[in-house]
Amino acid sequence: GLGPSEEYENLRRRIHSNTKEFWYYANHELGKLMHESDKEAKIRAILEQLSDRKSTLLSDQEKLSEMDGYHEWRQLEAANVSDLVQRRLHYLQNPPDCREARKLICNLNKGCGFGCQLHHIVYCLIFAYATERTLILNSKGWRYNTKGWEYVFHPISESCLSSYDDKVVQWPVSYDAKVVSLPFIDSISQKPKFLPLAVPKDLAHRIVRFNGDPSSWWVGQMLKFVLKPRLPMQKAINDTIAKMNFKSPIVGVHIRRTDKVGTEAAFHHIHEYMAHVKDYYDQLELTRPVDVRRVYLATDDANVLDDARQKYPEYTFLGDPSIAKTAATHRRYTPLSLTGLLVDLHMLAMCDYLVCTFSSQVGRVAYEMMQSNRVDASNSFFSLDDIYYFGGQNAHDRVAIMQNHGGKNEDISFEVGDKIGVAGNHWNGYGRGTNKRTNMNGLIPWYKTADHLVLYPFPEYKQVPIYSETSQKNV
Amino acid sequence: GLGPSEEYENLRRRIHSNTKEFWYYANHELGKLMHESDKEAKIRAILEQLSDRKSTLLSDQEKLSEMDGYHEWRQLEAANVSDLVQRRLHYLQNPPDCREARKLICNLNKGCGFGCQLHHIVYCLIFAYATERTLILNSKGWRYNTKGWEYVFHPISESCLSSYDDKVVQWPVSYDAKVVSLPFIDSISQKPKFLPLAVPKDLAHRIVRFNGDPSSWWVGQMLKFVLKPRLPMQKAINDTIAKMNFKSPIVGVHIRRTDKVGTEAAFHHIHEYMAHVKDYYDQLELTRPVDVRRVYLATDDANVLDDARQKYPEYTFLGDPSIAKTAATHRRYTPLSLTGLLVDLHMLAMCDYLVCTFSSQVGRVAYEMMQSNRVDASNSFFSLDDIYYFGGQNAHDRVAIMQNHGGKNEDISFEVGDKIGVAGNHWNGYGRGTNKRTNMNGLIPWYKTADHLVLYPFPEYKQVPIYSETSQKNV
Ligand SMILES: Nc1nc2c(ncn2[C@@H]2O[C@H](COP(=O)(O)OP(=O)(O)O)[C@@H](O)[C@H]2O)c(=O)[nH]1
Ligand SMILES: Nc1nc2c(ncn2[C@@H]2O[C@H](COP(=O)(O)OP(=O)(O)O)[C@@H](O)[C@H]2O)c(=O)[nH]1
Repeated sequence: GLGPSEEYENLRRRIHSNTKEFWYYANHELGKLMHESDKEAKIRAILEQLSDRKSTLLSDQEKLSEMDGYHEWRQLEAANVSDLVQRRLHYLQNPPDCREARKLICNLNKGCGFGCQLHHIVYCLIFAYATERTLILNSKGWRYNTKGWEYVFHPISESCLSSYDDKVVQWPVSYDAKVVSLPFIDSISQKPKFLPLAVPKDLAHRIVRFNGDPSSWWVGQMLKFVLKPRLPMQKAINDTIAKMNFKSPIVGVHIRRTDKVGTEAAFHHIHEYMAHVKDYYDQLELTRPVDVRRVYLATDDANVLDDARQKYPEYTFLGDPSIAKTAATHRRYTPLSLTGLLVDLHMLAMCDYLVCTFSSQVGRVAYEMMQSNRVDASNSFFSLDDIYYFGGQNAHDRVAIMQNHGGKNEDISFEVGDKIGVAGNHWNGYGRGTNKRTNMNGLIPWYKTADHLVLYPFPEYKQVPIYSETSQKNV
Repeated sequence: GLGPSEEYENLRRRIHSNTKEFWYYANHELGKLMHESDKEAKIRAILEQLSDRKSTLLSDQEKLSEMDGYHEWRQLEAANVSDLVQRRLHYLQNPPDCREARKLICNLNKGCGFGCQLHHIVYCLIFAYATERTLILNSKGWRYNTKGWEYVFHPISESCLSSYDDKVVQWPVSYDAKVVSLPFIDSISQKPKFLPLAVPKDLAHRIVRFNGDPSSWWVGQMLKFVLKPRLPMQKAINDTIAKMNFKSPIVGVHIRRTDKVGTEAAFHHIHEYMAHVKDYYDQLELTRPVDVRRVYLATDDANVLDDARQKYPEYTFLGDPSIAKTAATHRRYTPLSLTGLLVDLHMLAMCDYLVCTFSSQVGRVAYEMMQSNRVDASNSFFSLDDIYYFGGQNAHDRVAIMQNHGGKNEDISFEVGDKIGVAGNHWNGYGRGTNKRTNMNGLIPWYKTADHLVLYPFPEYKQVPIYSETSQKNV
């Protein structure tokens, strides 16, 4: 067979060698320090060194996937699997006989923001895919545009948009029930196992070979099917984009303030976001010169952009304060505000890197959209608070891949294979969670665990060919 | 084409994620520490954590090359390139007409130990290979066995062992001079560029694809050609080996004491060696249970083995104190001592990992032999003092792959591409060296440099086919 390239081999060895070097440094310096005291400046210098060494390591490791001979394969595979999912959804949404088709009704009247509503549609669409029902989106009286979803976006079917006058029954129902209406995910009884973060079993083993976070990739595929702006809206988006000097490299920052702060999320100062932006650019500069450090800043607080520009003159901020103004709570549920939000979401999703708070559905939607516009965005974001989740999801576990003897540190014990329900990562080397075998709750050394991906046997839509006529096969 | 395996992809992402985790931990803990003081126990705990995290990282990274789909390719390629070198040497050493062949005479009467003498032969053989001369080894009055090299080892030619009575001229000579005699490497004037650490240009690009240290691999190939014990010696070696319970996993430790200490090398306490043995086993235990922690201990000081057994009861030491006794300076140059040394060298070279001092030629020979009995031993040793070198070698440089702004730390400045003559690595994240562009000498952040491999256009021996009839091609 074809062997690895010289570059790859050199890189691989360099990573290994530099990991050792990193350790030698830490070991030596901290060892010396132990016998001294009150050395704040000294420790600060050590941290700077460690940080440089870490950036080099990560930068090299990010090259691995370009170097290992599988780069093009991943691109092709990602395109093919996405295409397959989209064709299956198209098949589901365009039954041969709409009148006879089994249907699922989704009401867009959820009293929340657009990110939350999008996730509601995603939930409905996954439900439809799992139960082989055509999804009917009911957007009468939609708070962002009273004319409804189809006034802004292409309808989610070309041929089947109504349940006629058939009787509607509430979920749960039998397979035969013709038209079913869904409750909100929060109030569903007996949560089906196919809800996020589950992924289809027949696709999972393909997805994991090109993407590091299949659950959000799967949600992203739902958004990709649903989020198709109509021409006037697309034009409005394009116009706004054209006015900005949007160019790579660029980091997207989403700062959610106003009604969210203090209720559903903590306040995060601009410098918390910018520390990660700086990190991104510092690391990027190891491999290429960066002339302008661009940041696309999206926010619902019109003051943030000015504040950022003043505090960080060495960065170039792209963003439209008038968009932020329309996002203020009293103007939020208007067509204009929706246009602004769509601009923000598209821009954030086009950035090379995203810094946000996953407590906000806007932040998560931006990431999910990133996942659907590239091979793998799973290392292209930093969330200041939550790890990725889907509101109303089933249990999200990590699985222990190494043993831990707890107790030293508020950390809990686990054995290889234990499932640990996770509450979050503290970004200090530990997360918090509950060992489901022992019921102990406490700190988890994150590196001893791996994400537990839930596979669900969704229908396999054998009627839809695995490869479309135009797709390139990967064989 | 064939894509990467799921395991490989998971591993690759895990490494990346864990490198970040490692950093989060260090950053957080040291950050907190900065605002405290005199926390010796606390820092010790941090170091233990860092150490665990580092072992996990390295353990995973060592799996990369098994996982990346190229494992078998590397094994085949390593076997093929080694076979090619051995066949070329065989061709060189067995000229069709010995009488007419151009020759190089190498005298084994160098007044030093066996490791040193082996390296002298390696130097001669590389010289012979570079100048296309058949090497004649003159071992009359050899200090380890007065009966000569051929009494112990197979001769280095099957058909051409004498320069007859042809006139012998001293190097340097013209191409046509028939029989040439070489000075010791230390006293050669105008050192040829083909001497170590140079490697043959026509092979280098093949070697780097399976081995992380081509220079020592090349030296190892010379040893492989030369070091073929005759039946009685091989039997003596086998008998001694059979008596020991030699089994993997096992770490080889070479402790050079007696005449070396204080003159050519510093004294190193047993615990310095054992710290690396412990590290090796701690890391190994992350991936498999280890029932017995075996150590093969070779030394020229008969007291060391007892001392080690007493101080480290949790390890099982293999080794023969009677061998060490014969290595004492007053008994060293005897056939019995040579047998003991060959046993030690073979055992050390068969170990999974080697801890030694590269200031000793015995240590370096053991490593070179490891390099010739596996695909890549370049991560299977730790030298307590020197980095790998060949006595009398040409300049050994590293090349800067990142810029460094010196001055913070006794470290020197360099630009990408600068060559840095290296004196050694301090195993604390820094080495020492001289920037050859600026002539500045000082500390070098090792991770910003890469080994500079010197390629030399050795003859390509086109008469020898690239693949032997029995070798499997890699195409
Ligand atoms: N244009 C714009 N609107 C925002 C932004 N952040 C929040 N909003 C508005 O606030 C709403 C927040 O509700 P939701 O999408 O459910 O997200 P969450 O409340 O942050 O979890 C959004 O849908 C927008 O209408 C922003 O960065 N840009
Ligand atoms: N059997 C045995 N002999 C040793 C050992 N270490 C040193 N010696 C003897 O001491 C000699 C040392 O000389 P040399 O090989 O030039 O290595 P160096 O002096 O350590 O650089 C060896 O050749 C052996 O004869 C050892 O571990 N085992």
